[in-house]
Amino acid sequence: MEYQVILASGSPRRRELLEQIGVRFQIMTSNKEEKITSTDPEKVVKELSMMKAEDVAADVSGPAVILGADTVVAHNGRILGKPKDKEDAVRMISSFAGDDHMVYTGVCIIRKEADGSVKKLSFAEGTKVTVYPMTEQEISDYVESGEPMDKAGAYAVQGLFAPYIKGISGDYYNIVGLPVAGIYQRLKEEGIALK
Amino acid sequence: MEYQVILASGSPRRRELLEQIGVRFQIMTSNKEEKITSTDPEKVVKELSMMKAEDVAADVSGPAVILGADTVVAHNGRILGKPKDKEDAVRMISSFAGDDHMVYTGVCIIRKEADGSVKKLSFAEGTKVTVYPMTEQEISDYVESGEPMDKAGAYAVQGLFAPYIKGISGDYYNIVGLPVAGIYQRLKEEGIALK
Repeated sequence: MEYQVILASGSPRRRELLEQIGVRFQIMTSNKEEKITSTDPEKVVKELSMMKAEDVAADVSGPAVILGADTVVAHNGRILGKPKDKEDAVRMISSFAGDDHMVYTGVCIIRKEADGSVKKLSFAEGTKVTVYPMTEQEISDYVESGEPMDKAGAYAVQGLFAPYIKGISGDYYNIVGLPVAGIYQRLKEEGIALK
Repeated sequence: MEYQVILASGSPRRRELLEQIGVRFQIMTSNKEEKITSTDPEKVVKELSMMKAEDVAADVSGPAVILGADTVVAHNGRILGKPKDKEDAVRMISSFAGDDHMVYTGVCIIRKEADGSVKKLSFAEGTKVTVYPMTEQEISDYVESGEPMDKAGAYAVQGLFAPYIKGISGDYYNIVGLPVAGIYQRLKEEGIALK
């Protein structure tokens, strides 16, 4: 059975990851307002990824696999969103410099059959990131680069922040925004080859 | 003091990593034949990176920082080189599918002053990679993609192999071929800003 793959996310980084592993897919984004009912990072990303996938799935005819995803950065259990301004970015980065933090991506996979029946699979994957101690000058230089401003947690793992990342534990692509291995392996268990 | 940065490696992946973190640098490659005197992965990458850096440093006037690097994949302590042919690639991937292996990058940083005096800094960094179990079909499809043929260990972490990588422990960029954080932090200790 050939399933059409639909990425329910407008993120260019997620699109690039799916392209990298050779998947043919379409992009459909949800315009629904994001509603959060929890402060627990794993619950939040599971909720938001499900909301996105469900909203898109409603407009899709099967057989299709719809992938929703949402990523947050959490330090000491507290979610760090996108910085409001440069001062906020400096404050966020200062808070986790020299320390560990977690990046969680929630994924909702909706499998919709030709007869309209639906099966949902939802999971959250966490990757630990360890950041070197940073000087005020390094933090300020990084913030001035402009890179932090549209990023949750005020940094991009795949950019200018690389000199400050001591190491990670878990899936690297989960930090970038899509745990492609976790998605591929779960679909494989379901008998679906992500291609 | 402004140091000219020279990458003593022709690897496009290493060049991209230095570009990614905003370093201005030149590339000069060594033509010396690689001579290995050990079977210990960490010793091998330290030796080869030092040979490359020393060979290039001899032709450079200071002040300059010369970076040599060499990467190997090791499974159960045994070095996996580049596959000789498709059968060899299948054999290598089959050996570490469903298991952990290590990727080591050796780095030699030669700091050459205007008066010709030289200071060497050498280290090897290891990153653990955990690979999901793979079917024969998955291994054969991956090998047929052609991606493994010029890669040590027969895979590229940043390519089509992503669905099979369960997680890593350590520096991701060390697997790609250059531990940019380790290099940046060691130069910072020496009072040199890598820019």
